[in-house]
Amino acid sequence: MNTSTKAYEQLLIRLKQASLLASCSAVLEWDEQTCLPPEGAEHRANQLALMAGLVHEQATNTEIGDLLEELESNSAWDEDSYEQANIRESRHEYDRVTKLPRRLVEELSRVGTLSHHAWVAARKQNSFNDFLPWLEQMIDLKREQASAIGFEGNQAYDALLDEYEPGATSELIEQAFLPLRKELVKLVAEIQNSGVTPDISILTRSYPIDKQREFSLDAAEKIGFNFEAGRLDIAAHPFCSGIGPGDCRLTTRYDEHHFPGAFFGTLHEAGHGIYEQGLRKEFFGTPAGNSTSLGIHESQSRMWENLIGRSRAFWNVFYQPAQEMFPEALSTVKIDDFYRAINDVRPSFIRVEADEVTYNLHIMLRFELEKALISGDLSPVDLEAAWNEKFKEYFNLTPDTPAHGCLQDVHWSAGLIGYFPTYALGNMYAAHFYQTAENELGDLNHLIEARDFSSLKNWLNQNIHRHGKRYRANRLVEVVTGNTLSHLPLMNQLKQKYSELYNL
Amino acid sequence: MNTSTKAYEQLLIRLKQASLLASCSAVLEWDEQTCLPPEGAEHRANQLALMAGLVHEQATNTEIGDLLEELESNSAWDEDSYEQANIRESRHEYDRVTKLPRRLVEELSRVGTLSHHAWVAARKQNSFNDFLPWLEQMIDLKREQASAIGFEGNQAYDALLDEYEPGATSELIEQAFLPLRKELVKLVAEIQNSGVTPDISILTRSYPIDKQREFSLDAAEKIGFNFEAGRLDIAAHPFCSGIGPGDCRLTTRYDEHHFPGAFFGTLHEAGHGIYEQGLRKEFFGTPAGNSTSLGIHESQSRMWENLIGRSRAFWNVFYQPAQEMFPEALSTVKIDDFYRAINDVRPSFIRVEADEVTYNLHIMLRFELEKALISGDLSPVDLEAAWNEKFKEYFNLTPDTPAHGCLQDVHWSAGLIGYFPTYALGNMYAAHFYQTAENELGDLNHLIEARDFSSLKNWLNQNIHRHGKRYRANRLVEVVTGNTLSHLPLMNQLKQKYSELYNL
Repeated sequence: MNTSTKAYEQLLIRLKQASLLASCSAVLEWDEQTCLPPEGAEHRANQLALMAGLVHEQATNTEIGDLLEELESNSAWDEDSYEQANIRESRHEYDRVTKLPRRLVEELSRVGTLSHHAWVAARKQNSFNDFLPWLEQMIDLKREQASAIGFEGNQAYDALLDEYEPGATSELIEQAFLPLRKELVKLVAEIQNSGVTPDISILTRSYPIDKQREFSLDAAEKIGFNFEAGRLDIAAHPFCSGIGPGDCRLTTRYDEHHFPGAFFGTLHEAGHGIYEQGLRKEFFGTPAGNSTSLGIHESQSRMWENLIGRSRAFWNVFYQPAQEMFPEALSTVKIDDFYRAINDVRPSFIRVEADEVTYNLHIMLRFELEKALISGDLSPVDLEAAWNEKFKEYFNLTPDTPAHGCLQDVHWSAGLIGYFPTYALGNMYAAHFYQTAENELGDLNHLIEARDFSSLKNWLNQNIHRHGKRYRANRLVEVVTGNTLSHLPLMNQLKQKYSELYNL
Repeated sequence: MNTSTKAYEQLLIRLKQASLLASCSAVLEWDEQTCLPPEGAEHRANQLALMAGLVHEQATNTEIGDLLEELESNSAWDEDSYEQANIRESRHEYDRVTKLPRRLVEELSRVGTLSHHAWVAARKQNSFNDFLPWLEQMIDLKREQASAIGFEGNQAYDALLDEYEPGATSELIEQAFLPLRKELVKLVAEIQNSGVTPDISILTRSYPIDKQREFSLDAAEKIGFNFEAGRLDIAAHPFCSGIGPGDCRLTTRYDEHHFPGAFFGTLHEAGHGIYEQGLRKEFFGTPAGNSTSLGIHESQSRMWENLIGRSRAFWNVFYQPAQEMFPEALSTVKIDDFYRAINDVRPSFIRVEADEVTYNLHIMLRFELEKALISGDLSPVDLEAAWNEKFKEYFNLTPDTPAHGCLQDVHWSAGLIGYFPTYALGNMYAAHFYQTAENELGDLNHLIEARDFSSLKNWLNQNIHRHGKRYRANRLVEVVTGNTLSHLPLMNQLKQKYSELYNL
């Protein structure tokens, strides 16, 4: 064994230990969202802050820095190898985390937990002012975090974005969002002027919750999520948590009178889960065994939720079982009407309930506001007004309450700033991947109609999941599709689908 | 602030940090028993081993030793003060844990987790041989642990027992068990010869599980468990986990055709939970905010499960609601017959389903076998035969399968050796406390019939819970009751109750 190999193995041990510890925090966080009794919130905040500090201590151990230096000057691995990716990405992460003082890391964790609980209460009370002091504290902390990490010019935001989408910049995102926004606004207008109005009331009939759970579980399993290595629970703000090998957890929320929420929510989280379950177990705890970026992660959830789950082909398979499961709601509803209803496009207040077309506009709005909060151009006290003004501009609607406006999302309360744009990136990545998968596998609708979900799942496993962080997101798109990121595949798919649906 | 006060505050910070970290492990352990997907077992074992090592590192930090030395030579706190108790008990703990190498601590955790899963599978397969290699490994580790801690003469067992019942010795326990066993055997024989045979078939009628859950939750809440600071879930082997202030979790298991299992199980765990919720929050993480011992803990669960929950007075309150909740099973059953059925005494295989009278014999059998496993007088390979032989001697029965014999309990698989005797100690302590509470509060049956559960709960809060580890168990019994531990209160209560029930 030469010295590089030795140093590399030492590095892996260090990385894996820090990840193992971080995965303990992941259990605590999952539990906080699904199980924690109300009076346990403060203790949980203390637990998570302590763990964040310990993880930080391990991740910033100077031995990692020494090993990286040794490897960087001596290693001869290929640029595209897993080994070189582990060195490159752990250097990136090491440089980022060593700039953060432990106090700040613990404070971000502690305030994030308490602020999250304050947000839950404020949303319930419909009071932006109840949440404001926490938002102010959080924005201060995030600005401090950005300063500690460092950035060029006035792009403090990019220092935060980099945590979720390594290598991305707000400039690049703006370049992708600009043409996308133009085309989306046009498409929305065409749809609104089409005169076609699907009957969405069929989706708010009575869908018993236990049946929704049974139906969602079955679909998640059919598309390839392994429940021997995962589970599905209820959470107010649904998420997927890949805790570690053999343990990936999905959450959803049920409303008896809203079928799409839990069902497409579960498909979405299952898409994330299939990605987590497709990571290489032997690389657990190293960048090569971790997801590429949140944008790529989101491409997987959107793929299954929208490109597959809201397709006509999917419901050619699942509609009859749905009618049998929910006879009261669906026995007299034709598949065409159901298909139109689940693809209804109309401007609305709530991002997580938005259709495929308007969804990205919700993201752009948040992206602009959070950039302004971090740059200081927007003060937290003015957020509610700024939100409502921009919402009017984008959607020609004014939120009736803060819970339907700037209080609707969990992210800012938890300090997840720079996270939103990854959702829209995910939609664009998903369209790229779908196009290439179709080129390689043949018509995906035919496969799905033949109940073959595993061809696509295996393709994703092979082409995306197993790479982990071997490539950065943009490069992964190039390697897999041969193209660079563009809004065109997404817009083409949307135009084709919605032209048919709305007779455009 | 003098130097002692400063050193004391420093000590508290250290202790609280170690406990906070240990409480993260408690969440992982709870999750392992209630939520973990099957394929996540290995990762969880790795997580728990790492956490055990980190907790060990913090608990053995030499600064704790230095602070203790300083405090021991300078402090002037009263012997019975909380401060002095924190110094005394953290010295005890520090001396114990510093003798254990980190490797052994991690190994005990890792093997404990894997061995637990092996035990679950072996019990399912009814194969003692499947579990044997794990048992051998565990007994070796526990003997190594006892050697590391150190002991006098041939009492390796006492070094393990001390972890659960600080200050107790097997000699003292034998002295208490000997007269208890004699009298129990006599009482069991009298009951068997009484000619009275309750109709226990009424307890195995259909009791729908959701109704069992509702009924148990209601009873647990009525006796004083706070569900804003706790929850109730399902686990194969029920337990209570006091994770930290505001977060205490009960578990139970349901069988549609066995009412007493979940119901009395829930009361039992709620008794543990009421103790945890009665500890002083401001002392969390220090001995003064921790339970006295497992024996005292068990006295609280047994108090609510048996002395209250199986009393006639309790069912004078709860029987009508039970009939309304389970009309199919109970509408034609008289309260007297129900009361007799839930107090049926007969030798049986399974400890956790045993009645109040035979229960302690199950404990004595385990106590003797585990002592012999640790001393080396009994080899693990001979455990099944030894169990069956002793079972025949104590109960005049031979287990039909290992699952009903030596594979029935979780404890040994998880390395919990020295734990069993605390169950019988708990029964004896509970009888002492009940007697004193009755002297001070008046007839407890009258209070209960008046639906007043809070007088007893508050009495327990004041006299037992809030002390934490201020006193050792034996001394707590003296302080609270004025008496030293004896089998007499327990035997007197059993004789009185069962003489009436069996016309002795």
